[in-house]
Amino acid sequence: MFELGVVYRNIERGDAATAARLGASGTATVHEAMGRVGLMQPYMRPIYTGAQAAGTAVTVLLQPGDNWMLHVAAEQIRPGDIVVAGVTAECTDGYFGDLLATSFKARGARALIIDAGVRDVRVLTEMRFPVWSKAISAKGTVKSTLGSVNVPIVCAGALVTPGDIVVADDDGVVVVPRAMAAAAAVAASAREANESAKRDQLAQGTLGLDMYGMREPLQKAGLRYVD
Amino acid sequence: MFELGVVYRNIERGDAATAARLGASGTATVHEAMGRVGLMQPYMRPIYTGAQAAGTAVTVLLQPGDNWMLHVAAEQIRPGDIVVAGVTAECTDGYFGDLLATSFKARGARALIIDAGVRDVRVLTEMRFPVWSKAISAKGTVKSTLGSVNVPIVCAGALVTPGDIVVADDDGVVVVPRAMAAAAAVAASAREANESAKRDQLAQGTLGLDMYGMREPLQKAGLRYVD
Amino acid sequence: MFELGVVYRNIERGDAATAARLGASGTATVHEAMGRVGLMQPYMRPIYTGAQAAGTAVTVLLQPGDNWMLHVAAEQIRPGDIVVAGVTAECTDGYFGDLLATSFKARGARALIIDAGVRDVRVLTEMRFPVWSKAISAKGTVKSTLGSVNVPIVCAGALVTPGDIVVADDDGVVVVPRAMAAAAAVAASAREANESAKRDQLAQGTLGLDMYGMREPLQKAGLRYVD
Amino acid sequence: MFELGVVYRNIERGDAATAARLGASGTATVHEAMGRVGLMQPYMRPIYTGAQAAGTAVTVLLQPGDNWMLHVAAEQIRPGDIVVAGVTAECTDGYFGDLLATSFKARGARALIIDAGVRDVRVLTEMRFPVWSKAISAKGTVKSTLGSVNVPIVCAGALVTPGDIVVADDDGVVVVPRAMAAAAAVAASAREANESAKRDQLAQGTLGLDMYGMREPLQKAGLRYVD
Amino acid sequence: MFELGVVYRNIERGDAATAARLGASGTATVHEAMGRVGLMQPYMRPIYTGAQAAGTAVTVLLQPGDNWMLHVAAEQIRPGDIVVAGVTAECTDGYFGDLLATSFKARGARALIIDAGVRDVRVLTEMRFPVWSKAISAKGTVKSTLGSVNVPIVCAGALVTPGDIVVADDDGVVVVPRAMAAAAAVAASAREANESAKRDQLAQGTLGLDMYGMREPLQKAGLRYVD
Amino acid sequence: MFELGVVYRNIERGDAATAARLGASGTATVHEAMGRVGLMQPYMRPIYTGAQAAGTAVTVLLQPGDNWMLHVAAEQIRPGDIVVAGVTAECTDGYFGDLLATSFKARGARALIIDAGVRDVRVLTEMRFPVWSKAISAKGTVKSTLGSVNVPIVCAGALVTPGDIVVADDDGVVVVPRAMAAAAAVAASAREANESAKRDQLAQGTLGLDMYGMREPLQKAGLRYVD
Repeated sequence: MFELGVVYRNIERGDAATAARLGASGTATVHEAMGRVGLMQPYMRPIYTGAQAAGTAVTVLLQPGDNWMLHVAAEQIRPGDIVVAGVTAECTDGYFGDLLATSFKARGARALIIDAGVRDVRVLTEMRFPVWSKAISAKGTVKSTLGSVNVPIVCAGALVTPGDIVVADDDGVVVVPRAMAAAAAVAASAREANESAKRDQLAQGTLGLDMYGMREPLQKAGLRYVD
Repeated sequence: MFELGVVYRNIERGDAATAARLGASGTATVHEAMGRVGLMQPYMRPIYTGAQAAGTAVTVLLQPGDNWMLHVAAEQIRPGDIVVAGVTAECTDGYFGDLLATSFKARGARALIIDAGVRDVRVLTEMRFPVWSKAISAKGTVKSTLGSVNVPIVCAGALVTPGDIVVADDDGVVVVPRAMAAAAAVAASAREANESAKRDQLAQGTLGLDMYGMREPLQKAGLRYVD
Repeated sequence: MFELGVVYRNIERGDAATAARLGASGTATVHEAMGRVGLMQPYMRPIYTGAQAAGTAVTVLLQPGDNWMLHVAAEQIRPGDIVVAGVTAECTDGYFGDLLATSFKARGARALIIDAGVRDVRVLTEMRFPVWSKAISAKGTVKSTLGSVNVPIVCAGALVTPGDIVVADDDGVVVVPRAMAAAAAVAASAREANESAKRDQLAQGTLGLDMYGMREPLQKAGLRYVD
Repeated sequence: MFELGVVYRNIERGDAATAARLGASGTATVHEAMGRVGLMQPYMRPIYTGAQAAGTAVTVLLQPGDNWMLHVAAEQIRPGDIVVAGVTAECTDGYFGDLLATSFKARGARALIIDAGVRDVRVLTEMRFPVWSKAISAKGTVKSTLGSVNVPIVCAGALVTPGDIVVADDDGVVVVPRAMAAAAAVAASAREANESAKRDQLAQGTLGLDMYGMREPLQKAGLRYVD
Repeated sequence: MFELGVVYRNIERGDAATAARLGASGTATVHEAMGRVGLMQPYMRPIYTGAQAAGTAVTVLLQPGDNWMLHVAAEQIRPGDIVVAGVTAECTDGYFGDLLATSFKARGARALIIDAGVRDVRVLTEMRFPVWSKAISAKGTVKSTLGSVNVPIVCAGALVTPGDIVVADDDGVVVVPRAMAAAAAVAASAREANESAKRDQLAQGTLGLDMYGMREPLQKAGLRYVD
Repeated sequence: MFELGVVYRNIERGDAATAARLGASGTATVHEAMGRVGLMQPYMRPIYTGAQAAGTAVTVLLQPGDNWMLHVAAEQIRPGDIVVAGVTAECTDGYFGDLLATSFKARGARALIIDAGVRDVRVLTEMRFPVWSKAISAKGTVKSTLGSVNVPIVCAGALVTPGDIVVADDDGVVVVPRAMAAAAAVAASAREANESAKRDQLAQGTLGLDMYGMREPLQKAGLRYVD
């Protein structure tokens, strides 16, 4: 774990159809469906509004200020993958720009999730290549120290194992371990079905207090109303 | 003050027409008109560009990671209200999403101001339900501990008393105490009338140095020009 | 240096055509072309997406919470200038709004770069007057203490000498000293020419590993592939 | 509220003996005893380890970069008071140094709580005049704009009303409204009595799981043990 | 992974003697010896200067604002363990105080590493029970939602697997996977032996430029000296 | 300016006696004496309480995560110098530890000021080698990319020219340009003489309001007293 200088070529990827279903549910629903674990920290933001992606993780462990391993990772990308990159120390440099995005896209990558900075965001936005990052910075990087590809990494506070399903949208980024993905997709769909009916009721003025039966527990907890 | 477990049902709301006038002036002008007090900290940002709202405050005191009282607050909303929520400790969780927004909107709320996180921001944006928040996060919340509704609260560094007029736009969020609202609206309008003429002059190339008569005080203060 | 109470009227400005060429290259390319120096810190963000500017620096040294010297600076602006403002202490107040923007624009300014806050961002956006700032805040400022105009300043971690060429876009803000500008423009153009061909190759699926000849140095560095 | 340019001379102070009792309990216990409200944000830190203070609040509303009102506040200090200062905008300047500390001490003040910066911390430490602040900074301040003394203020996220009891130690700063002080002191003492016995048991190896009877609720909540 | 509601009772702990050797080397040396991976983020600070600890990790996954699982973890502590706690969302609450410290100490724990807040720091310091944390806060926590004990967790950006060796001192916190521990201890000792001789040379005025043979590589890299 | 790959060997240093006098005055007084310019940002903190230093600046421009130039700088140190290091991008790595400190001390350096991280702080404290830094981190650095020595740099928001006088203590770090140093020392001494008499008066209970003659300007500014 946290090995440096290694590229694992054969990783077991989560199921593509499950990834698609989870993506359709969105991060907030998926995170609930998982029991509220697996969310990256909220400083991870999409470079453009409305960005959405779901896919299987190719992980990259980067050195600070050094994007060499993103080039190594490109070769390991298969269509439907999302590259997820952590760094061994805090860094806001711009590791990724339009050239790497062109390469990643040509290899079939759906997105980049990086716990550092990116650049060329105007061009990335025009290409509609979505990136979730900690920073935007014109600062470039060198190519001199080895990291790894497809080892377990920590990205923005979340553990990511190669092949995990990653779901990202305007609300953030959630990591779904492969073994939990099918169950999470079922639970997420159930939540959505449930929410649709509730939305209609609430739109008609029904209070959540009544719809969820909260009045009694609130009273038991001691809530007082004062006129 | 800072009572827990209480809902005040009868609050005295600021005047709706005054709220509308203040909203038309915008936060920067209103804040000046108030003598530069009442501004929330600048980390409070709208979830979409161009969001604007003005209304009367229904306040909510929340516990960290617990949105129970937002459901309780929904019942206290009257058309024209803005829900303003503080938390008893720092928290970036997503307390509010599209279901609560549907309910708040159905009750007549114009906006949410929350010193914590929100989620479902894509849907909230489509609904044009404006929210000013400290964070965006897919992290959900529980419903287990009491807070209060319509007690004085602190939100993003500003004291908010129930019924205060709240004005929010791209520049931030300002709180106008009920007793100061009429005077603030008059002062804000006066500033605006004044600014319109100045804008024309400046657009024609007149310098603020001359228009505001600054040359003499600058000279007195000792400003030197070097060629 | 860091003199207070002085306005230098005659500064030597960088070449306008060179500024235009550097602006066309963009901050990421210019920063690389300069050997990776001169970048402001990444907390400097444009007030609207897609903002772009390049020009010659008129510098302003401001006191915290005091925008008097921006009015003094307005008189020193010539068409093609960018006003770059540093503050003697950390401050997020809204130093600049639509009136000053109207004045700056009338004088020919192309942008404001300020290591503090701005306000009226909706109007500034409608005017298409680009600003890069540390914060957005409705908080106004006073006009009571002298700073300076056209002295060397520090803005967001970068040293800016009056007349330097400043390039700003979605990726950040880069400062190019006058003496380095011509060489930087040549180097930036060379980089761009080079990148265009690479982009085509990468789009066709060629890997950076092969295109840049990285396989051998990676192997020498000890990279292991595991199947 | 948030009036500028006013000094209230006659404020009703909380009871000195109650303040002393609350101070003896410490912030963590008092905060629990109050139902977990009234705590300032954790960025407020003492300038020296081991600082402890409890007293009645003289409040000050300051302008950014301007410490004029601290001089005005000095006259309102009575023995046993703690000066609590909020600022109308974010500021890290050093508002308070050894001269003001000498004056405050001579007037009987026990501490300063300030949502901004202080300086001369070596001398303040030698004087044993405790200060809790957001920052330490050599940056001085001007004396040019009015704020207020003894109006309700917000300091580090907490509402402080003049005369409230303030308790501060290494764990932070808690504000106890006058009306709640007696009850809070009783509750705090009860907690302490209770804790002493528990401490002994825990020291002998008894588990909290058993002492607090947590095993059954944990099991009901579904906790599984895996060997 | 990231399972909620589970306690693993039988974990394989790293070797105690190896932990002691790594502790004697200190975090900076151990981190180098590991190839510069495994370091927690630098916001993790000891509650008192000079704190030092090394031991085997008992991990805890906490919910925000809820310290229930620390009580569950107490039972799993064996002499020589260090409790390492991550939280499913950002939180600065004071999860741990003198009662839990008494219990942990009685069970043989050497330290607590927590990606959240602690309280009672004065008493913890007197007890010499070292804690590395993100914050200090008097804010207490509830006991209502399950997390887990002895599952892999992320703490301050580092992955921690139960039984890993943890080394902490004034410079930060390093996690050494069990499988790497013996090799890391050897490498760390080798570094130290090497450093001692170098220290003597440097103390006598020898330059690192000469001692490390840097002059030639610097010249090759193009370093110019200007008189 | 901001040249990479250059070492200036002959710099003009500020006067040693003046540096000593400024050091005796301390940062707060010196900063006032300079007209409130030249202060580094308040995130720069000493690694131990009570650290004090004054000397002449040897400047270093570092690359992120690379401390090669600190070794180059060691050779340029003369007794009485303070090494001041800026980085071309944000970085919290531990650039400096006990070996470099031993070397710097042997060369006569009085302190290090670095806009990044340091490590081995326990040993540095025992050696009484003072460091002011942005972070403390066990993370080491590489030696692969050139920066410069004795070029003008930006460190924590302040411009530092080689040979400037640097004064640092518990309140922060101030940079005094060589040309201003003599005047600043005189002004600082005058302030101190003045302060001593004031301190006595304040200690006897005289109010600053009376001692500074503030009552009349406060009244003119409109201050109202309410009984």
